[in-house]
Amino acid sequence: MKAHLLTIGDELLIGQTENTNAAWLGRRLSDLGVEVKRTVTVGDNPDTMRAELERAVRQADFVVMTGGLGPTHDDVTREVLAETFDAPLRTDDEIMDRIRRYYEQRGHQMPPSAPQLAQVPEGFATLDNPVGAAVGLWYDASDDGCVVAVLPGIPEELKGIFNGSVEPRLEARPHLRAVTHRTLVTSGIGESSLQERLGDLSDLLDDELSLAYLPSTSGVRLRLTAANEDSTAAEQRIDQLTERIRARAGEHVIGTGDVTLEEVLAEQLRAADRTIGSAESATGGLIGHRLTGISGSSDYYEGSVVAYANRVKQTVLGVDPELLDEYGAVSEPVAVKMAAGVREALGVDVGIATTGIAGPTGGTEEKPVGTVWLGYADDVRTRAVRRQFVEDRTLNKQLFATAALDLARRELERHGDAEDWVPR
Amino acid sequence: MKAHLLTIGDELLIGQTENTNAAWLGRRLSDLGVEVKRTVTVGDNPDTMRAELERAVRQADFVVMTGGLGPTHDDVTREVLAETFDAPLRTDDEIMDRIRRYYEQRGHQMPPSAPQLAQVPEGFATLDNPVGAAVGLWYDASDDGCVVAVLPGIPEELKGIFNGSVEPRLEARPHLRAVTHRTLVTSGIGESSLQERLGDLSDLLDDELSLAYLPSTSGVRLRLTAANEDSTAAEQRIDQLTERIRARAGEHVIGTGDVTLEEVLAEQLRAADRTIGSAESATGGLIGHRLTGISGSSDYYEGSVVAYANRVKQTVLGVDPELLDEYGAVSEPVAVKMAAGVREALGVDVGIATTGIAGPTGGTEEKPVGTVWLGYADDVRTRAVRRQFVEDRTLNKQLFATAALDLARRELERHGDAEDWVPR
Repeated sequence: MKAHLLTIGDELLIGQTENTNAAWLGRRLSDLGVEVKRTVTVGDNPDTMRAELERAVRQADFVVMTGGLGPTHDDVTREVLAETFDAPLRTDDEIMDRIRRYYEQRGHQMPPSAPQLAQVPEGFATLDNPVGAAVGLWYDASDDGCVVAVLPGIPEELKGIFNGSVEPRLEARPHLRAVTHRTLVTSGIGESSLQERLGDLSDLLDDELSLAYLPSTSGVRLRLTAANEDSTAAEQRIDQLTERIRARAGEHVIGTGDVTLEEVLAEQLRAADRTIGSAESATGGLIGHRLTGISGSSDYYEGSVVAYANRVKQTVLGVDPELLDEYGAVSEPVAVKMAAGVREALGVDVGIATTGIAGPTGGTEEKPVGTVWLGYADDVRTRAVRRQFVEDRTLNKQLFATAALDLARRELERHGDAEDWVPR
Repeated sequence: MKAHLLTIGDELLIGQTENTNAAWLGRRLSDLGVEVKRTVTVGDNPDTMRAELERAVRQADFVVMTGGLGPTHDDVTREVLAETFDAPLRTDDEIMDRIRRYYEQRGHQMPPSAPQLAQVPEGFATLDNPVGAAVGLWYDASDDGCVVAVLPGIPEELKGIFNGSVEPRLEARPHLRAVTHRTLVTSGIGESSLQERLGDLSDLLDDELSLAYLPSTSGVRLRLTAANEDSTAAEQRIDQLTERIRARAGEHVIGTGDVTLEEVLAEQLRAADRTIGSAESATGGLIGHRLTGISGSSDYYEGSVVAYANRVKQTVLGVDPELLDEYGAVSEPVAVKMAAGVREALGVDVGIATTGIAGPTGGTEEKPVGTVWLGYADDVRTRAVRRQFVEDRTLNKQLFATAALDLARRELERHGDAEDWVPR
């Protein structure tokens, strides 16, 4: 199945917004065995949109069109669909009711432009939007041998509709290419080091089995792809490659699929019936934010102290001013004391801490930008490790947080057995 | 001058790499007065590339093609150019010498594929690469009334060649369209409500003056664009539209260009010589994370208490357990007490607080998912406001944080005069 993406928006053309939707859709569709052959971006101009849509429908089996479904005057996607497919717009009463309720619940008056959101071209199915008011659209342009999915441009809405409604519809179709994927999620190792650890894999890899490195600030994912009509054979080849990877870098492989470091840590904490809290300087609250990104995190996460100022490190976390004077805030003893201090201050079982130099200023020869000390404390042990990352502030904050979470994961992995644990 | 971008690479289609080049080129070309009308991405397939290149050359005045200029076997851009423009490849001796020196200087042996980098289609000019080995290419396809620039896909190389060689060549051409942009940044109002507030603008807008809404979880940006050869006239039209927008939604306009809510708040706090801290439940540390995204934030941001568990709200922030029993954690008195409590706990001038239901679970009829109470406290006043957002956890956390920061901005705007302030 060959897909074309058609993403709409002047803001994409002039680079005011990065086209993250195209990349996300590309990844998801590839994983589903849909081959993305072309991505086109044009502005909010009905004639151009129509020309591109007609071309895509003619050339592809599946077209995903994004953007231009909002309530404002430059949202013209519905009109373009109506014209292109000769499908007059009608008001969908159910959607209209939902929009009315949406505004009622929020105590807002419905804006006069809102009814536009309930207009649906004749013959189009609607796709539920779990996040916002604009529904997605689905059309079987059978005459052209093509299916069209239309999604809002707001990334969260697009993802919600894709996962809930587009993916199941695609999976129900027969002519997907037989591609088997597996993703191995790693933690605590960079792309180059991981590649070095894995070494030469050319005896395993070929045209039908490939390995891609997908690095991000939360770790490197490895995507293993086998193309084979026989899915058992494909699975076997992927198993073989997985085995090699685990043999060479096994302690860094924390799971498969979409699993995240935060989820692995959540499982560990739940299993050991322990609570966690963070003491954050350089990460500014990001560790707490990431831990609370998971629904149900209140089972094991109790809170954090962001001690950005040294005064807060002293008053709330009990860091001795003399330690700060002697070693500086970015130091082993301060990281240890912050981790131990947050256990006391919040009454949690495990404390993790960050103190570092995110940059761009504040670096010294001895402690350049990118230096971080990570602290860990539980009821029987404390630990601190120094890591060195990059020059960019935004990246450093993410990398520091990931490293602190990974330190907790490893300590819990190593020492987290129940008998090893002295309850508070 | 109308431009089409043609970006090449399978990794872009399957989303393994984000197409940051397209966004960067879009921004730079727009700033130079070149209108980017379409961006197309296709894979490393010569036939497809040729079809897209021919179409772009036919329709645009200026085509920028990126990618496929490297030394590997799937780098076929040179062959495609040679075929499309009937311009046989020749080896450029000067480039060949440079490549030889490049490897010599680094003490590496020249790879056998390197000579490919010195091949140039007949009639093409070369553009110096200040960063890497692959040169850019420039072709005046005068027969088709089009100019073609070809750049490597590696972002640093692309930027280096664009800035050094493409920009000056473009500026020397007469037919750039005079386009003037201005972005107004708003806060504390959604897209629909903002549109309603702005009302009918059709007396001001036309083909030469347009207004685009760019919504995100940190606010809606408004992009005003005027096309006019006379830049003074363009500025005047944009001023006129700006004036109207400010008259109708002025309290929501917090700045222009790339300014963020966090930066506006930073300016207010610096000007008033005050410090801030946050007490976060539903946002889990995100407010602290966002405030510390700015380098230099330690001048006014001291820290946060993430009080995810009610016990932490009591012990660290001093929230009375009876308040929690009587009103629940998501309530006006708790939000107020959290904001006041973090002032005490951290010794800061201004406290802001969030307590809400991010979802997907935990909602009730009275307090559905998306409900948040925001608290504000300074030395003379406390305040709490209730807001209702969406159903998605990730979005809610961002929207709650934005709303809390915006509450602080408004309170400081209203009451933040120096004489109004009782120092701690």
